[in-house]
Amino acid sequence: MNNYGKMNIVIFELEGSNLSSYNIAVVGATGAVGREMVKVLEQRNFPVNKLKLLATERSAGTRINFKGETIEVQVTREGVFKDVDIALFSAGSGPSKKIAPLAVKEGAVVIDNSNAFRMDKRVPLVVPEINPEKIFEHEGIIANPNCSTIQMVVALKPIYDTVGIERIIVSTYQAVSGTGKKAIEELKKQVKEYIKGKDIESSVYPYQIAFNVLPHIDIFKENGYTQEEMKMVNETRKILNDPDLKVSATAARVPVFYGHSESVNVQTKEKITVDEAKRILNKASGIKVVDEPGRLLYPLPLMSEDDDNVLVGRIREDLSHELGLNMWIVANNLRKGAALNAVQIAEELIK
Amino acid sequence: MNNYGKMNIVIFELEGSNLSSYNIAVVGATGAVGREMVKVLEQRNFPVNKLKLLATERSAGTRINFKGETIEVQVTREGVFKDVDIALFSAGSGPSKKIAPLAVKEGAVVIDNSNAFRMDKRVPLVVPEINPEKIFEHEGIIANPNCSTIQMVVALKPIYDTVGIERIIVSTYQAVSGTGKKAIEELKKQVKEYIKGKDIESSVYPYQIAFNVLPHIDIFKENGYTQEEMKMVNETRKILNDPDLKVSATAARVPVFYGHSESVNVQTKEKITVDEAKRILNKASGIKVVDEPGRLLYPLPLMSEDDDNVLVGRIREDLSHELGLNMWIVANNLRKGAALNAVQIAEELIK
Repeated sequence: MNNYGKMNIVIFELEGSNLSSYNIAVVGATGAVGREMVKVLEQRNFPVNKLKLLATERSAGTRINFKGETIEVQVTREGVFKDVDIALFSAGSGPSKKIAPLAVKEGAVVIDNSNAFRMDKRVPLVVPEINPEKIFEHEGIIANPNCSTIQMVVALKPIYDTVGIERIIVSTYQAVSGTGKKAIEELKKQVKEYIKGKDIESSVYPYQIAFNVLPHIDIFKENGYTQEEMKMVNETRKILNDPDLKVSATAARVPVFYGHSESVNVQTKEKITVDEAKRILNKASGIKVVDEPGRLLYPLPLMSEDDDNVLVGRIREDLSHELGLNMWIVANNLRKGAALNAVQIAEELIK
Repeated sequence: MNNYGKMNIVIFELEGSNLSSYNIAVVGATGAVGREMVKVLEQRNFPVNKLKLLATERSAGTRINFKGETIEVQVTREGVFKDVDIALFSAGSGPSKKIAPLAVKEGAVVIDNSNAFRMDKRVPLVVPEINPEKIFEHEGIIANPNCSTIQMVVALKPIYDTVGIERIIVSTYQAVSGTGKKAIEELKKQVKEYIKGKDIESSVYPYQIAFNVLPHIDIFKENGYTQEEMKMVNETRKILNDPDLKVSATAARVPVFYGHSESVNVQTKEKITVDEAKRILNKASGIKVVDEPGRLLYPLPLMSEDDDNVLVGRIREDLSHELGLNMWIVANNLRKGAALNAVQIAEELIK
């Protein structure tokens, strides 16, 4: 188990920051999600006193803009979190396990985007639209759920609250940016090689991703599922606080840069009509219903590049089950699926 | 209703062809499926006496190779089927409705790849691995099922026969070649525009397909489903001769050239283990089990370019239902999903 002390929100005052603005660190600042975190902090006008950008030695020295200022990326090392109030981590599971406890020890509250602490009982797993109250149970670390989980639970929560959910069957269509910057580059490179008639080489994925679909995200587990699929099962249960919720997931990678899509079949506990489902989704925060087939309006990954909402459409009665509903859920995996959700947690934290 | 007379296999003899080889026509010969039909006839060494390639005026004059010979495409007009034994149609639903009855009247047996006759009670809907006996009930026309239906029923039939199937929930990842040659060109063009930093234009699809996913295949029906999704429901029931089978489908287009993928959740009537499912699928004709996650082996659309089997993998117990099974099914949509299945029907016909 991870060995980090119990911290709490009082640290903000102890650290001597201006009470209405905070010292923020982004760990893994040069990655796809890290860069998005910096953007989201700026776009949402998060009250930042000082922004510290951290990465490995390899990326140190990189310059990143924040509110017209250029900030040089520093190496993550002991002592660096001493003046930090909130550290947004997007450094991968291994580094998070090592560095997050250090950051907590040095007085920061960590919001971690990796898989390292999500299922740890002492760590809240938070989607602010769903369980913001859990944030204040933290002992120094708050976990940001997996991208494909976040968008699904945001879309399903209003239905869950209204009629209950018995079972979820989900198939994903996930963008390469979920893997990181290298995967974005790999898809671009492969597409260029294809156009030039060259041999297509793969290094990030085990197979060509351009013009292909890989039913394989993260490592394979003993039960035949991938870790990505099991995250969708276990994290959904934890976030909805429903350990017996039935979830079956198939996760696939598609040659898309940004925006995860999900085909979701949900079996509710009581009957809900399509109209009623649309009505409650329309009212919910963080959701935009895009569902006018007659005008060819439905959620698309390209749409999610400029929209921070979880887009929900193709809502229709399941022809195979009287309590079934099908829907198509799309969100920007780097933003609502990662950076935005993390910053939203930070916003709740300082409220 | 379509008005064509009852024909039967006897016409082969009446038409005076050499009894062991047949006059074949391919209608829509210049299309993506039409060209594949010509290839499959050659590759499988179908006993062709004379091959007639037919298309619209616009494509007439095109030259296509068949067994080292160059055949000029002719205009489809009255009288053209008089010496034809079997006409393979891949001309779209509208042209099929008009021309197929004419071909039958002129003495040909039509194997039609369009949606025109599939649900017609007088027309057998055939996948040779599943219901070859239906072929001989034809009254002049035999329908080739929809590509996404074919690969799913081939993969599910052994399970259906062994333990019964209660319910199917499928989400598809379909290649652009299913739309035809123009869509293949559109994806190529869009990818080039992307690489050159140009604006990306769409004409075949309502939205950009490169680096995007469209949850929209064929037209939308009143119930919110697309026609493609309803084909998967209705055709599966007809092919398996099980009008009450529960099927729920979501069909999506992905930026892949060739090979449809499907994430299929099936609820059986009796329990079947993963090992037993693999065993019976391995024995079945037309199926290749590609399922060794430890060696990163699972079906991929790129694999299906060189493989005429329906590829089945990622077979695992559904964690949300004790009688559930998840699997990932891939096949070449132009071959097993269209041209190959049509030629296999013709092979049965002349047996």
